[in-house]
Amino acid sequence: MRDCFEIVDKDLLGRVGRLKTRRGVVETPALAPVINPGLNVVPPREVAELGYGLLMTNAYLIKRRYGDVALEMGVHGLLGVETPIMTDSGAYQLMEYGEVEVKPLEIVEYQVKLGSDIGVILDIPTRHGVSRETVAREVEETIRRAREALEVDRGDMLLVGPVQGGVYLDIVARAARELAKLDYDIYAVGGPVQLMENYNYRELVRLVMTAKMNLPPGKPLHLFGAGNPHMLALAVAMGVDLFDSASYALYARDGRYMTPHGVYRLEDLGDLPCECPICSKLSVDELREMPYQERVYRLALHNLYVLRAELRRIRNAIREGSLWELVELRARSHPSLLQALKEYERYVAFIERHHPVARGVVSGLFFYDEVSRGRPEVYRHLHRLRERYTPPPADALLLALETEVKPFSRFGWIAELAKAVAGDALLRERVHVVVASAAYGVVPLELDSTYPLSQYESAIDTDEPRVAAALASDVAWFVRGLGRYRLAVVVYEARHEAAAVEIVKRLRRAGLRAFLRPFTSVGDTLAFLKLVLALSQPHT
Amino acid sequence: MRDCFEIVDKDLLGRVGRLKTRRGVVETPALAPVINPGLNVVPPREVAELGYGLLMTNAYLIKRRYGDVALEMGVHGLLGVETPIMTDSGAYQLMEYGEVEVKPLEIVEYQVKLGSDIGVILDIPTRHGVSRETVAREVEETIRRAREALEVDRGDMLLVGPVQGGVYLDIVARAARELAKLDYDIYAVGGPVQLMENYNYRELVRLVMTAKMNLPPGKPLHLFGAGNPHMLALAVAMGVDLFDSASYALYARDGRYMTPHGVYRLEDLGDLPCECPICSKLSVDELREMPYQERVYRLALHNLYVLRAELRRIRNAIREGSLWELVELRARSHPSLLQALKEYERYVAFIERHHPVARGVVSGLFFYDEVSRGRPEVYRHLHRLRERYTPPPADALLLALETEVKPFSRFGWIAELAKAVAGDALLRERVHVVVASAAYGVVPLELDSTYPLSQYESAIDTDEPRVAAALASDVAWFVRGLGRYRLAVVVYEARHEAAAVEIVKRLRRAGLRAFLRPFTSVGDTLAFLKLVLALSQPHT
Repeated sequence: MRDCFEIVDKDLLGRVGRLKTRRGVVETPALAPVINPGLNVVPPREVAELGYGLLMTNAYLIKRRYGDVALEMGVHGLLGVETPIMTDSGAYQLMEYGEVEVKPLEIVEYQVKLGSDIGVILDIPTRHGVSRETVAREVEETIRRAREALEVDRGDMLLVGPVQGGVYLDIVARAARELAKLDYDIYAVGGPVQLMENYNYRELVRLVMTAKMNLPPGKPLHLFGAGNPHMLALAVAMGVDLFDSASYALYARDGRYMTPHGVYRLEDLGDLPCECPICSKLSVDELREMPYQERVYRLALHNLYVLRAELRRIRNAIREGSLWELVELRARSHPSLLQALKEYERYVAFIERHHPVARGVVSGLFFYDEVSRGRPEVYRHLHRLRERYTPPPADALLLALETEVKPFSRFGWIAELAKAVAGDALLRERVHVVVASAAYGVVPLELDSTYPLSQYESAIDTDEPRVAAALASDVAWFVRGLGRYRLAVVVYEARHEAAAVEIVKRLRRAGLRAFLRPFTSVGDTLAFLKLVLALSQPHT
Repeated sequence: MRDCFEIVDKDLLGRVGRLKTRRGVVETPALAPVINPGLNVVPPREVAELGYGLLMTNAYLIKRRYGDVALEMGVHGLLGVETPIMTDSGAYQLMEYGEVEVKPLEIVEYQVKLGSDIGVILDIPTRHGVSRETVAREVEETIRRAREALEVDRGDMLLVGPVQGGVYLDIVARAARELAKLDYDIYAVGGPVQLMENYNYRELVRLVMTAKMNLPPGKPLHLFGAGNPHMLALAVAMGVDLFDSASYALYARDGRYMTPHGVYRLEDLGDLPCECPICSKLSVDELREMPYQERVYRLALHNLYVLRAELRRIRNAIREGSLWELVELRARSHPSLLQALKEYERYVAFIERHHPVARGVVSGLFFYDEVSRGRPEVYRHLHRLRERYTPPPADALLLALETEVKPFSRFGWIAELAKAVAGDALLRERVHVVVASAAYGVVPLELDSTYPLSQYESAIDTDEPRVAAALASDVAWFVRGLGRYRLAVVVYEARHEAAAVEIVKRLRRAGLRAFLRPFTSVGDTLAFLKLVLALSQPHT
């Protein structure tokens, strides 16, 4: 087993990595622009010079067009670059045209001879709308070919094993588990082109996550044919390290102009909303009035700049630990991406296991709404409270709804209240101060300086019924789990009233004597607390 | 009254416009980079050559430093450009230092003599945390000065009248109404620097919207000191046409690197996530290791490129009618911007009156969640249903929950159902087919091809309690308003069950005989409908 992949940084399931090929290291996440061997929209050398450390071309098309003549020049000679090159095997053509004129082993051997740095086996891509039986049979054939292909002496060429199965997730899982047993350098998820063309990113999440969960976590993962910049961040958050796409050129030929948050038609643009070397020198009219070939060339370059910048943004986000924020931002590029993000959140237990504990750059987490609560930090916090937490011995809960100043234990009235409780001999023994946070649910005050429990900015409205219900349910779960509180006082500012009411309801249902108390002053709250404690003395 | 402003395109309250100054037309929305007359981080000529059509400098500082000597060169001579220049009057210095060494009329006259293209009166900026009485007194003084300043012969110089008042919205409204009576070329909203430094964008929305609603809608509006790219789209959506900011330079001196969705510290970046002419030629290490002055110069240029691109993006969005989408996207740059957007939605009735009926480019509207439902198209649709709608004569409502294919009247099972109803003599007379849409509430099927009722993509979950409740309430409101239905059948796909249940509850409370019916087939639904109609015949 060759170890060709080094993981440098992690965030969610995404990683910044180094993929070692015989022609040098490829920094990941990377997108390999697809070079059509017969028709270069942008010359391969220029693509490489833009900083694309990996190119993709099609060994099957090369074989058909040039046959063994190509073997003399090698794929690097053909494209005129020394950059690492990945070659495809004709599987896409198999999907498009139903058959290819090459045998599975033959095309692997051809890729080796062509000097490809990364080769792909001739798998059978799952098409959309095909019956379960057919897909199951095709996947078995792909697995068979994957076993067989390992017998080819591939020398220094890295080999990719594609997971297929489409919407049949049990088949996807089986394919991934079987391939995981084989010594592949790189794994891939195949056949999502139709899903992506229809913006069916929710289904794509199911497919990629199912594959990811069943593949060796340390191996690089490739996603075939993903080239719309707005979905790259989410794909990386699922653990995708490599992309290949011809979108920069296909879009350019079709007059489509990429931006980080979506694709525009050139004729709809009044200004070029971009500062890349192409757009900063041209007006939109100049671009529109160019001869077709020149316009396509420049649009393709622009698209390559946009993709490059998005990949850099993603790498930065992984390093500083803000990939979640980037994914949430991109989820506002199209409603289907928000649906996909909600689907992604269903895998939080798996994501949390791989998500690092500390961020690269210490900065606050952003919480916008219920969707933000799906991030692994929230799951992790609640999970740890359940598994590992021992509260101080107290029978009364003083539950304060979060304030805008944080950490709660140091600033604002929650801190003052806690100080007053600690300074009172009676209260100190009996009262435990806990914060209800729209972001994290329940935060025992003695834990609140633990990262990231007070490092966040929140726009979550606690008066949204779902948020109030979630918060009340977190509090009730916490109280029931500990089983030690007999009474509770819920203190809150007016804007949190709806949530406070909901929490008190749930606490009463859980058997506590629970009281609502709008915050006015520390003295007032303390007096109320003492009154409540006195009235609820056992045996009085 | 001079007419210096032409509005070319509108979207929400934002506009693409042409501001005519004596030195040429400034295309708006525009941001005037602030040039410090004593210390240029980027030479003014270079700033102008980047395409910034308006520069800002400080007449008060020029007067203090150069006095009457500056009048010989004029402000254009001093800065070495022929670009239109706006000058500030020292009001910012008044706010910072409490006093200035110049009289109000004196500085207006000085600006005229300096050859400024746009001058500002010496108003009294409202500081943060100042008492209501003080603010009221200061605003009266600003209004007095504004009246007085109009007596100065300003020749071709355009004059700006600033609205002050800070968080005291009644004072802001009064200031705006009083200034609106005066013949100012441009109005401004003043003093939001502290609000913006604290990211208190919600308060900023209240301030700007209050001013906007009380100022002449056709006049250009300037917002002082707003230079963080992530908030420009929202400000433009409030009707702001002009900005000035030194942020490009101040951030650069502080090692801060702008992006469209936020500001980063240069030391936190692993890659430069930008394709501007600066960043596409440099690595982050090269930038970091430069001598301070060179780094500041390049960072400032980068920041200017980012601001320029954002302004172009905003202009494109206005032209194509997608400013709402851009504002919603930017609201995911920071939770405080989402809070601000929610505040902005409270002004929907005013926004709707100015929002154009047709979009520049016909494309679908995006709906993500409850926040998206705050857009003026939704308000407009429901308002029109209430005011102008006459339904066909029918006593039964067939309410279908939206499908993914649209328009509902042409595709999918809703269309088939409607066709079957229309083909049946009995049903045709008695049944009205209406769609419940998470985006628009209620859409009578005969209206659904009216723009934009079926041109949308939605990620709104109807099983969120707030959405289900809003939808049910829209349906009940529609039914009660018409007062003609006696019974209703609610047909739905499984994913909308929660909303369908809620709707039936509300319809029953409104006095209808309402029935739930999961959709299985057209025939089945029709049979059920007939059964229900038969059973509920009057007098049987």
